[in-house]
Amino acid sequence: MADILHMVTIKARPKHVYAALTEQAGLAGWWTEKVSAEPRVGSVAQFRFGDRGGSDMEILALEENRLVHWACRAHLSGDEWVGTEVFFDLREENGATVVRFSHRRWLEATDFLRYCSMKWAGYLVSLKNLVETGHGSPWPHDVQI
Amino acid sequence: MADILHMVTIKARPKHVYAALTEQAGLAGWWTEKVSAEPRVGSVAQFRFGDRGGSDMEILALEENRLVHWACRAHLSGDEWVGTEVFFDLREENGATVVRFSHRRWLEATDFLRYCSMKWAGYLVSLKNLVETGHGSPWPHDVQI
Repeated sequence: MADILHMVTIKARPKHVYAALTEQAGLAGWWTEKVSAEPRVGSVAQFRFGDRGGSDMEILALEENRLVHWACRAHLSGDEWVGTEVFFDLREENGATVVRFSHRRWLEATDFLRYCSMKWAGYLVSLKNLVETGHGSPWPHDVQI
Repeated sequence: MADILHMVTIKARPKHVYAALTEQAGLAGWWTEKVSAEPRVGSVAQFRFGDRGGSDMEILALEENRLVHWACRAHLSGDEWVGTEVFFDLREENGATVVRFSHRRWLEATDFLRYCSMKWAGYLVSLKNLVETGHGSPWPHDVQI
């Protein structure tokens, strides 16, 4: 098992970060413009990245302004993500929101994990910029690595 | 034990990436402008980041255009890095250089690991930009997260 673990501090209240992690318009503003999602436990959000594939994420748990927890049910470009779980843990500290991001339960530390670790870091900066300034860099506007 | 694992593809030959990872002028162009380093096994490179601290890295191994391997011998803002090891593994693929970055042997998956995982991702993009365009974003010009 291997995990991707990141952290970013966003100068905003948790409710604004939580909205960007749960509402379709928010998710479209930092991860990918091609998203179909609703903030409901048990629903499956679809994220697409053109010919780079995409993923279907079941929303396993939502704690308002505190936690977003997904499990990957399908992935278009391979099966490494299937069964992995993504957590966004939000804590208010000194008027900002600390986001602890975890992408857990990878079976192996593959090259795709390394690639995704870099991509998640960039998307978390995109999330920070979206919430702080109104302008993120979702796919297809993300940095190519 | 926990590891930070990243990967970035740089559109340049390995010798250009290797120079940026071993020569003082190269390291100053993507990680921190405050660096004292020479490309010699057994030497200790000093990296400083203003009041955010810095680290002393012993150069454990160098394989020309293939591998750079450091071990942290001192860290100014805590002891979590001491004893950890950093690897830059370079492979030429389709005329580009794939850099597999590993920061291994963390004793625990702490918040500082999460922070450093984000920072390393940004610095690897800085390395890519330096080698590809001549312009990186070393400290103090790096993205604040």
